[in-house]
Amino acid sequence: MRDIGIGILGFGTIGTGVVKGLQENGDLLAERLGARPVIRKIADIDLESDRGVDVDPSILTNDAAAVVDDPDVHVVVELIGGTGIAKDLVMKALEAGKPVVTANKALLAKHGKEIVKLALDKQVDIYFGASVGGGIPIIRALREGLVANRVESIDAILNGTCNYILTKMEEENMAFEVALKKAQEAGFAEADPTLDIEGHDTAHKAAILASLAFGMEVPLDSIHVEGITGVSDIDMKYALQAGYRIKLLAVIKSGDGEVEVRVHPALVPLNHVLASVRGVYNAVLVRGDLVKTSLLYGRGAGMEPTASTVLGDVADVVRNIVCGSPCRVPAVSLLAESRVMKDMANIESRYYMRFSLKDEAGVVAQYSEVLGRHGISIASLMQKEENEGDSFVPVVLVTHKTVEKKVRAALEEIDALPTVGDKTVVLRIEEQE
Amino acid sequence: MRDIGIGILGFGTIGTGVVKGLQENGDLLAERLGARPVIRKIADIDLESDRGVDVDPSILTNDAAAVVDDPDVHVVVELIGGTGIAKDLVMKALEAGKPVVTANKALLAKHGKEIVKLALDKQVDIYFGASVGGGIPIIRALREGLVANRVESIDAILNGTCNYILTKMEEENMAFEVALKKAQEAGFAEADPTLDIEGHDTAHKAAILASLAFGMEVPLDSIHVEGITGVSDIDMKYALQAGYRIKLLAVIKSGDGEVEVRVHPALVPLNHVLASVRGVYNAVLVRGDLVKTSLLYGRGAGMEPTASTVLGDVADVVRNIVCGSPCRVPAVSLLAESRVMKDMANIESRYYMRFSLKDEAGVVAQYSEVLGRHGISIASLMQKEENEGDSFVPVVLVTHKTVEKKVRAALEEIDALPTVGDKTVVLRIEEQE
Repeated sequence: MRDIGIGILGFGTIGTGVVKGLQENGDLLAERLGARPVIRKIADIDLESDRGVDVDPSILTNDAAAVVDDPDVHVVVELIGGTGIAKDLVMKALEAGKPVVTANKALLAKHGKEIVKLALDKQVDIYFGASVGGGIPIIRALREGLVANRVESIDAILNGTCNYILTKMEEENMAFEVALKKAQEAGFAEADPTLDIEGHDTAHKAAILASLAFGMEVPLDSIHVEGITGVSDIDMKYALQAGYRIKLLAVIKSGDGEVEVRVHPALVPLNHVLASVRGVYNAVLVRGDLVKTSLLYGRGAGMEPTASTVLGDVADVVRNIVCGSPCRVPAVSLLAESRVMKDMANIESRYYMRFSLKDEAGVVAQYSEVLGRHGISIASLMQKEENEGDSFVPVVLVTHKTVEKKVRAALEEIDALPTVGDKTVVLRIEEQE
Repeated sequence: MRDIGIGILGFGTIGTGVVKGLQENGDLLAERLGARPVIRKIADIDLESDRGVDVDPSILTNDAAAVVDDPDVHVVVELIGGTGIAKDLVMKALEAGKPVVTANKALLAKHGKEIVKLALDKQVDIYFGASVGGGIPIIRALREGLVANRVESIDAILNGTCNYILTKMEEENMAFEVALKKAQEAGFAEADPTLDIEGHDTAHKAAILASLAFGMEVPLDSIHVEGITGVSDIDMKYALQAGYRIKLLAVIKSGDGEVEVRVHPALVPLNHVLASVRGVYNAVLVRGDLVKTSLLYGRGAGMEPTASTVLGDVADVVRNIVCGSPCRVPAVSLLAESRVMKDMANIESRYYMRFSLKDEAGVVAQYSEVLGRHGISIASLMQKEENEGDSFVPVVLVTHKTVEKKVRAALEEIDALPTVGDKTVVLRIEEQE
């Protein structure tokens, strides 16, 4: 049986998972592939830490570039992350005609165009299945299984940290800060959780999915991003009373030659399939013109689930090497059909609004008039008994479908009224269509 | 751009979906593949019916064998179904070195070994993604995405007809016969629904999944099969009171060198992810040693979702033709590791039992004694108030985990007691591990 040399860049959590996976299931994989992936070199800055796997010290090195150059390394697995040295090494490997497997979402989201172009020019494979959704095979589905579909929309929970925090907040009636601390203690949030909780990690993943779905470049700065730091336990409670759960969603839609990609906390109806995704789980709901609704659900992160997908990609590359079929599936199929990114001000949605209003006669009429004048119609209204202590009372409503810019204009006006206390909280609602 | 000739055998619902899909999304697919699948011939007995698609009459024929022989047909898509002529045509195509895409679960489940062997001998592709789960990419996941995993178990809802009937029974408090009639009226059940409601359709699919998961032949007659005709609305109600929903499941497990594959109605806890699969939807819950839990959910049948998967397979074959990489992914990776099918009498489960007992002193003690003597311990017990009209009362219990043969022995004894009315109803419970 033929050996295929693997070089691993980055011996962190995922790298360790890949090494363990190959050690434990290498024979099985070899039988299934008809060729054996063999780890030739592992590069990391830290060669001392005990990672709980037995590795021949002679294959460990500090010199990542040398791993790429090693003639016995046929496949480069990049698990360093970030857009610094990782980018240089990926480009170097592709330049040398070596296929790359990576789990690096930031790299793909920021430099995908350049990387994919080089891979195409050199006719060499780049696989990135683990960059979105950990163990969830969404990238494979978009590149292969759903290839005959015109994708209509993708709604997804793509960040386990945020979903864990939101689940805790709801289930245990916790404030955001408390739930974040719990997540950090449980190892589900980093010491610096900014990338996750501000929504940027989800935005990176959304950019990759949208690029694949629509065959176009999706610049990160064209994505509207809101994180979950502004989600309060109060809104979570009111949302639940109104039949909704709050989730951090990536919303990707196409229509009329426009593509919208946005990341924000959203209210989803309790019977929405994404409402039942709890804790660190991720899920991706794809709608295609043929397949209709397809949901993929699983572990969106973690050592072993992510290693499962990295090794699935390694298997693809090994098969392509054995069959002499590099670039059998292009990294991204750029389509001729031209679409533009939709301006966030023009998106349509239903909205949840929580006003803080003076408890006086005529106040509700006043803000209703403003909403009405901006063409926003109210679907249901809840006046809350709770007193906010300073004569302001919370009023919660849900609108019919309207346009974002109308909401912005109306709220600017409302928030300037003297009868309004705290700034109005506004959250979008995503229905299951 | 290169044209790849497609020959379609069977112009029924799925065949129509495939033709429509290629007509509507053919340009998109060609762009993504770099080659254009072109329908050269369509064979069917019925060339008259209006199928709502525009097809050049000159490509229609009654002569399916001639389609396979046509030198301009490079890929044969078999959508006839069954194990008669469909088998001959598939074998003929493989024999001639033409790749085959099929959605035929019965053919694969019954003659998979022979077909796969011929495909391997001839080094020609056979793809069968649509044979299980319609639009759900479970076969692709097992053959490719999860290739580095040791599969531990698969729990799946694979028959939309049965799931629709069970959902109706529960939601609208219907008897089985009434729900079946509703399903037939709604077009979700065939005039002769035997294959579906007796569980055989699910068993065919389970055999295919188990073969792929464990790399072994899984004879149909080694699968324990019970359908849903014996599921009563009474048990559905009691199950719900105890926190369970009744689903027709395919249960596939591996352990200690043994594989169990069984199809039967099962109680699943309400918080089990499969409990929320309603109506005609299907779902497959896979557990692998690396990926942990992965759920794929979607339309398990229907013209367009199934066509989506058939066309995904056609795309794979086209890519293999373009790249000269036939058999890049073997149809089934037969593994050296030897496993045997587990005897159904030895499976372990928790059980739901509904006894019909004489309403007399000492009766409960009597049957409890029998259960205890057979080593079956009771986890919870509900005595129902309902009078069955003839002095028998229903007693419902849930056992701790035990072995099937103990249950069989105990019930044989209990059902022979003079204090027992109707035969005891017994259903297995599947927990989410």
